[in-house]
Amino acid sequence: MIRPSGRAADQLRQVSLTRHYTRHAEGSVLVEFGDTKVICTASVEAGVPRFLRGTGQGWITAEYGMLPRSTGERMQREASRGKQGGRTLEIQRLIGRALRAAVDLKSLGENTIYIDCDVIQADGGTRTASITGACVALVDALRVMQQRGLIKKVPPVRMIAAISVGIYQGVPVLDLDYPEDSTAETDLNVVMTDTGGFIEVQGTAEAAPFTPDELNAMLDLARKGIEELFALQQGALED
Amino acid sequence: MIRPSGRAADQLRQVSLTRHYTRHAEGSVLVEFGDTKVICTASVEAGVPRFLRGTGQGWITAEYGMLPRSTGERMQREASRGKQGGRTLEIQRLIGRALRAAVDLKSLGENTIYIDCDVIQADGGTRTASITGACVALVDALRVMQQRGLIKKVPPVRMIAAISVGIYQGVPVLDLDYPEDSTAETDLNVVMTDTGGFIEVQGTAEAAPFTPDELNAMLDLARKGIEELFALQQGALED
Amino acid sequence: MIRPSGRAADQLRQVSLTRHYTRHAEGSVLVEFGDTKVICTASVEAGVPRFLRGTGQGWITAEYGMLPRSTGERMQREASRGKQGGRTLEIQRLIGRALRAAVDLKSLGENTIYIDCDVIQADGGTRTASITGACVALVDALRVMQQRGLIKKVPPVRMIAAISVGIYQGVPVLDLDYPEDSTAETDLNVVMTDTGGFIEVQGTAEAAPFTPDELNAMLDLARKGIEELFALQQGALED
Amino acid sequence: MIRPSGRAADQLRQVSLTRHYTRHAEGSVLVEFGDTKVICTASVEAGVPRFLRGTGQGWITAEYGMLPRSTGERMQREASRGKQGGRTLEIQRLIGRALRAAVDLKSLGENTIYIDCDVIQADGGTRTASITGACVALVDALRVMQQRGLIKKVPPVRMIAAISVGIYQGVPVLDLDYPEDSTAETDLNVVMTDTGGFIEVQGTAEAAPFTPDELNAMLDLARKGIEELFALQQGALED
Amino acid sequence: MIRPSGRAADQLRQVSLTRHYTRHAEGSVLVEFGDTKVICTASVEAGVPRFLRGTGQGWITAEYGMLPRSTGERMQREASRGKQGGRTLEIQRLIGRALRAAVDLKSLGENTIYIDCDVIQADGGTRTASITGACVALVDALRVMQQRGLIKKVPPVRMIAAISVGIYQGVPVLDLDYPEDSTAETDLNVVMTDTGGFIEVQGTAEAAPFTPDELNAMLDLARKGIEELFALQQGALED
Amino acid sequence: MIRPSGRAADQLRQVSLTRHYTRHAEGSVLVEFGDTKVICTASVEAGVPRFLRGTGQGWITAEYGMLPRSTGERMQREASRGKQGGRTLEIQRLIGRALRAAVDLKSLGENTIYIDCDVIQADGGTRTASITGACVALVDALRVMQQRGLIKKVPPVRMIAAISVGIYQGVPVLDLDYPEDSTAETDLNVVMTDTGGFIEVQGTAEAAPFTPDELNAMLDLARKGIEELFALQQGALED
Repeated sequence: MIRPSGRAADQLRQVSLTRHYTRHAEGSVLVEFGDTKVICTASVEAGVPRFLRGTGQGWITAEYGMLPRSTGERMQREASRGKQGGRTLEIQRLIGRALRAAVDLKSLGENTIYIDCDVIQADGGTRTASITGACVALVDALRVMQQRGLIKKVPPVRMIAAISVGIYQGVPVLDLDYPEDSTAETDLNVVMTDTGGFIEVQGTAEAAPFTPDELNAMLDLARKGIEELFALQQGALED
Repeated sequence: MIRPSGRAADQLRQVSLTRHYTRHAEGSVLVEFGDTKVICTASVEAGVPRFLRGTGQGWITAEYGMLPRSTGERMQREASRGKQGGRTLEIQRLIGRALRAAVDLKSLGENTIYIDCDVIQADGGTRTASITGACVALVDALRVMQQRGLIKKVPPVRMIAAISVGIYQGVPVLDLDYPEDSTAETDLNVVMTDTGGFIEVQGTAEAAPFTPDELNAMLDLARKGIEELFALQQGALED
Repeated sequence: MIRPSGRAADQLRQVSLTRHYTRHAEGSVLVEFGDTKVICTASVEAGVPRFLRGTGQGWITAEYGMLPRSTGERMQREASRGKQGGRTLEIQRLIGRALRAAVDLKSLGENTIYIDCDVIQADGGTRTASITGACVALVDALRVMQQRGLIKKVPPVRMIAAISVGIYQGVPVLDLDYPEDSTAETDLNVVMTDTGGFIEVQGTAEAAPFTPDELNAMLDLARKGIEELFALQQGALED
Repeated sequence: MIRPSGRAADQLRQVSLTRHYTRHAEGSVLVEFGDTKVICTASVEAGVPRFLRGTGQGWITAEYGMLPRSTGERMQREASRGKQGGRTLEIQRLIGRALRAAVDLKSLGENTIYIDCDVIQADGGTRTASITGACVALVDALRVMQQRGLIKKVPPVRMIAAISVGIYQGVPVLDLDYPEDSTAETDLNVVMTDTGGFIEVQGTAEAAPFTPDELNAMLDLARKGIEELFALQQGALED
Repeated sequence: MIRPSGRAADQLRQVSLTRHYTRHAEGSVLVEFGDTKVICTASVEAGVPRFLRGTGQGWITAEYGMLPRSTGERMQREASRGKQGGRTLEIQRLIGRALRAAVDLKSLGENTIYIDCDVIQADGGTRTASITGACVALVDALRVMQQRGLIKKVPPVRMIAAISVGIYQGVPVLDLDYPEDSTAETDLNVVMTDTGGFIEVQGTAEAAPFTPDELNAMLDLARKGIEELFALQQGALED
Repeated sequence: MIRPSGRAADQLRQVSLTRHYTRHAEGSVLVEFGDTKVICTASVEAGVPRFLRGTGQGWITAEYGMLPRSTGERMQREASRGKQGGRTLEIQRLIGRALRAAVDLKSLGENTIYIDCDVIQADGGTRTASITGACVALVDALRVMQQRGLIKKVPPVRMIAAISVGIYQGVPVLDLDYPEDSTAETDLNVVMTDTGGFIEVQGTAEAAPFTPDELNAMLDLARKGIEELFALQQGALED
């Protein structure tokens, strides 16, 4: 089996995390997993959703979008269609859940952090790139919150990163790009925390059912890749 | 650890599958997992979505809904809100993917089978009950298709069933009901086929990350439960 | 003239009212008029619409829906279409008006009772079955309100029931089923109160105008049928 | 009992029908029932809805709207709310059904006549004024269709007119204006054809149930009023 | 060059402004520019949008609509389409901005004036007619506000009027009607105040780019026409 | 008067045009006017809107969006609100009209070019930057169309560029940035073609009416700025 990109089975694409990518947001990161490019911003606003008012607790929520021509074929703009599709809603719910695992919401005060992940170029793995980039933007936003006096100190953050793995031509491979993703037998998205556990595991058999052994092989690959991502996040945050 | 229902950790709720529950649909099943009750219908229509026209292949798609007062607190009716929520879309996409794994779509001719899963009473596990019940309705619909001459013979069906498992008070348990689901540390939905593999594995850490060992313990429980479901489906179809 | 069902012109279908059909709602009734089956729930919530705030008065409102395959041909789900159709809105407005005639809204305190009527199987007469079943659910909800201390005592209820009548093959007939409804010359829905008057009279000439005499013949039939319904409601409430 | 307007119980308001009120529509009538003013247009378009294609039969459909400040309090514009309300849909469905009774749809060829009734000033009775005015616009549109060669001859038209009646302070009165309508015990809208029968009878008890005798008294009043309307329509069409 | 209407190049159509056209609104004007007819109402409501609450300042906003058959071909009703089109939103934003230039918003107290411009017959120039008519309705509404004690005195009003100009067959012409508008090379809408300056200048090259000289020639024509409109507004307000 | 940025009154911001910014679109340009950054793509699709089918003519249309945190305060995502706002629709209509002036639509065959302008960072002048960048993307898309054989040769293109001018503290200034735009007395957007004429002139008095002399002074500034933009477009296209 030779991957279309020539990568080894356990090799990530070139990943980069560019902080302060746009200037208005409290956190703003361009994340690139090879040709997949996503702008992740973290925006701080006073106030929380109704169900949290008066609890002293904060909230983190996420929205996801793709520019119409981020893809090989132009997609209809969701704003002009008048609604977000099921895939979009599913992804933004996943991103929100993942980021809420990064920090104790009680430490935020009654503030909301909006995570916006906008794909400007897609080549597979946009949801996992989004989570990985957004966690860096979240840390930057927490630092700004502290500078502005919204919180006394930056609370402890469990870093969150995510990667896709799959079975491609019978072989477990790490970090699927679009040519792999569109033909893989199985596709698994894994979200982990740097304290060493799973936050989300979402596996789908596209062509054939998968076995517990295949699942475990994929999870091992994912763990390896995510550890590399934690190092890259760490490096970016130390710059 | 004592489960609120008093069940053993690896014990399903009382499950029943009532075929021919309503009379218009080609397949119509009331599925009950304890107090969770879902009407699953399979409706056959000539024609396929645009992207399949002219291919000779069929399609299976699903929609999911909850009656406003199927839950403890009345929910707003999605039809009057003017849109389906993210959770609804996520679930109906899951059901559709699961059911499409049951049968070779090429064997359906250019016909579409609409799966409708409508929850009339909810007590946790509505999506897994829906998949389990809908697969029985699908088989009935295929039989009607053959009777009507839409297909020459009923194609081979891989039975599909689904169950939720979770970590409740530190212990892996099978088939979460609402009191468990709302407080579980981890929630995992598993969809399998009777040919022995996974179709979907969706695990979410609600309170704390989970480990590979916990994941495997939950998958083992799920496998046990799903095998019981296959037997119940088989029994229902033989009546 | 022989009715498709073989019933006499002035004969209702088999009617049954099953209380406590689902377990979450304050009132929950499965009403069956022959093959027409509707789940009617009454849900109590604190608060009233804006125009009543501060008046001390309560409110009763209704919503109506049909499961997509409650009918012979699958209908598009209104939640996925993104709006309720005109027929749905017309029916739920009718149900709401009818039920508000059952009780003095001042006796409810600033609480709202939501009536949800969801058709799980349709064979004509869904709106009249809905009203008839919902009134029983309303009584159960009032009893729960009293048990919960929301109201001091159950206020006097004028029972409300409804039936359709029509001219079928030139003859006035009671309680049209779908084969009759779809070919009747005239269709009349009548809502009455057990204190003996009309709440709503809605007659439509489908094929030919109708005369005052025909109208009066139909009203007489309706009165007879509704009296039987009052007895059935009474019986159900005494169980 | 003295009516707010000083009219006799069986007296219509001043009614006028101004043909050719706007210049683009095939039929265009300003109908005034006292201070209620509605522009009714009939627009002819080639083609019919999908369910009639290929049948050779035509279609008549109606839409209804109110200018935001046609009423005492400004209403939100339905176009900016993003949907038509239940009352609007109910009224336009009524107008459409009523007008379809005016002419044999087979005589129209595969053409659609759109009836638009737009209330520019409201003082009660807008739906009945709309039907009465729209029928005149329909006749004008049929004449234009014949001039344009869309139909060989103007088909026979059963004139349709409508009026509201009610019980006001215990007395049946004809043609309710807004001060009466908003306080009437019962409100009944009646649509008739000049061949002498009822097309629609829609009665609602607002404050107290009504009896068969009251219903018959109201129907008698309606018949008297509608006959006057037929004469006014006739006069307008002969101008 | 001969204009389709036979008018001189610098000649307005017959313009009329009919005050008190409908009876509910605080200001209600029928404005006619030849065959273009628009009902302009000004409605006063207590309260302001959120961004002005507590400032003591008022607000003026506008909505615009066309009756479906105000035009040569019937347009789909925006209320039934479920949204206002881009052209509608663009025009109502223009009307709102123009009218807000008429009066110091601080002088209104925390009240909102809703301007509704509804085209009942269209023959080009509906937006400029709307602005011209709405300014008269606004003055009437201010007078009513003073009578009702909402404001102590009618604040100073800069009258606002608007006209379209264009290049038609190479010649600058004033007040385009539909036959001119649909074939003009350039179309320019000009809004002015009677204190002598421009409020809005919106020019669009339809067929060929236009030069600064052509722009100035058109602006001169517009100024001449708008001065005539100021005189007509003045006359109407003195009646 | 000193501009917040320290620029001379007739000085553009630093403008850059980066071609091939993303890889899927036929044309893809990142345009920067200082801190304003917009991704402009041109996407080619076979087919035209219904009103052009069978004419052999092509179409160019545009959509515009802003990332939620492209601005100082996060804006609600239009896709999740369920509709595009009036400002968005107004801008995308402007971009579409401007670009359609660039090329003879008959030369495109029955193909549509979708222009998408997505603002990733906003600092005033997003609509003029969008037009200026989109015209370069359009040229690239035409070249691709020729390479793919969709058109025989690249048709002549009139380059289109746009700039904003305004009266800031009494002085006409070129290329307003956000601090100027939000406080300018007058704001004028000018679109020109390199053949020397105006395509659009849209001036709005924000605080005080403007005079013909002020208008002409602003137009002169705009002309100077747009000529510099033409040179930059030329340079970018020659790279």
